[in-house]
Amino acid sequence: MSSVSNLKPASAIGVFDSGIGGLTVVRELLRILPAEPIVYLGDTARVPYGNKSRETVLKFSTENVLFLLHHDVKLVIIACHTASSFALPFLERHFNHPILGVIEPGVEMALQTTRTGRIGVIGTNATVGSQAYPHAFARRNPRVQVHQVPCPLFVPLVEEGCLADTVTEQVAHRYLKPLKAARVDTLILGCTHYPLLKRTISRIMGPKVCLVDSAHQVALKTRQVLDALRLRHPAVNRAAPARRFFVTDEPRHFETLSLRFLGRRIGDVSKV
Amino acid sequence: MSSVSNLKPASAIGVFDSGIGGLTVVRELLRILPAEPIVYLGDTARVPYGNKSRETVLKFSTENVLFLLHHDVKLVIIACHTASSFALPFLERHFNHPILGVIEPGVEMALQTTRTGRIGVIGTNATVGSQAYPHAFARRNPRVQVHQVPCPLFVPLVEEGCLADTVTEQVAHRYLKPLKAARVDTLILGCTHYPLLKRTISRIMGPKVCLVDSAHQVALKTRQVLDALRLRHPAVNRAAPARRFFVTDEPRHFETLSLRFLGRRIGDVSKV
Repeated sequence: MSSVSNLKPASAIGVFDSGIGGLTVVRELLRILPAEPIVYLGDTARVPYGNKSRETVLKFSTENVLFLLHHDVKLVIIACHTASSFALPFLERHFNHPILGVIEPGVEMALQTTRTGRIGVIGTNATVGSQAYPHAFARRNPRVQVHQVPCPLFVPLVEEGCLADTVTEQVAHRYLKPLKAARVDTLILGCTHYPLLKRTISRIMGPKVCLVDSAHQVALKTRQVLDALRLRHPAVNRAAPARRFFVTDEPRHFETLSLRFLGRRIGDVSKV
Repeated sequence: MSSVSNLKPASAIGVFDSGIGGLTVVRELLRILPAEPIVYLGDTARVPYGNKSRETVLKFSTENVLFLLHHDVKLVIIACHTASSFALPFLERHFNHPILGVIEPGVEMALQTTRTGRIGVIGTNATVGSQAYPHAFARRNPRVQVHQVPCPLFVPLVEEGCLADTVTEQVAHRYLKPLKAARVDTLILGCTHYPLLKRTISRIMGPKVCLVDSAHQVALKTRQVLDALRLRHPAVNRAAPARRFFVTDEPRHFETLSLRFLGRRIGDVSKV
């Protein structure tokens, strides 16, 4: 985060994701930072990232950051957990802009909520394989026990709209079994799609297990960083701040799914 | 297929797919055309194509063909049903090389096997939405009834290895219900991944429904085209013909899954 003196408070927050899931982060930004303009990029032509290699995710993430910088953003949020796991340290090293991932905010929250020190993490194959969560926990508190389970079928199930569904329920039972056996008291939903399965996951894990949704945490963290850098939008006029949405594939599917992820339908999405 | 006089019989057959599934076509080529060298390209960095738009699939497919032409192939097989559905007419128009898709061979086979004229087609959202199958049937026999059902969860289920699995069984029951109700007597497996679910699909559809797997058909068609163009490999020496495998993402995952799709593990895959 060196040399950020040329950044302008009136600029937008840049958000990128492998596809549509990052809209859950946008939703929280709209709540917590309502005056901020936003530029969103969903890499829908190359989605998903969760079954790709580190090298490929690094390449795609770098291209996404460059796109956002072209749009003069003041800060970049990596809304995708896979991209955060693989690419954040690399991107922080190579770009001067402040860049936030979704791993650390979730880890911080989990450390606040756990009483037993037994924490579960669910994510894509790539996120779990990257060991980003265990490493982040180890840096802060080496005594917590981290139990990870990859849940690769959750993303397609959510994208197909199988939210309250017997199949999803069965798949979730299977994935969550080792986490119940490990008696975790806190479970990080380590993929942007998983909060849409919160009800099913919560029912299976039981009421005593706290589910951590990184979207809210990263929005809080963003506010903190903008304040620290004196980059909060001045909000001098009362016109609604601009929110621009870009995708790399045809926008229609994104527009349709936006209702599910953002809580409202986006009408004006541009193809890059 | 004009101006193919500069093509050489000793050149390889080029095969591309969005990822790993096209290896089911390679398996049939190895059986039916054992003397032919093969160059395979799996676009694993951008997989899957089945939920992408026509325009994006056209772009990716064109890039894949260009890659194969750089490797001096004499014929191109589009092993991916989504790419065949969207891109074949475009690619045939713009390239002089013979190019084969997987739609037509399946349609021809289905017309040979059906007795009632009620034919089912299962595929990705993109393949079904493209209407490539209904159009291909209408061109040959406008009186057949074509019933299509998209089965988007089959690909992730196969890739996660859920072949004989209660979840897959349930999902299959749901997808196939309208095809049973329509009393189809022939069902095209319109995606390279679906033959791996043949047992489950066959059990649900019943023994009287004939399942059409395009991989075998496209290999037969390839032999026919090579013969017609006098492009069969001369096979003068008895050394094993070269088979080269390329992927756009890290090769390890492809190597692991190759056992499932090809029936044997490929050890030497190169990243493009």
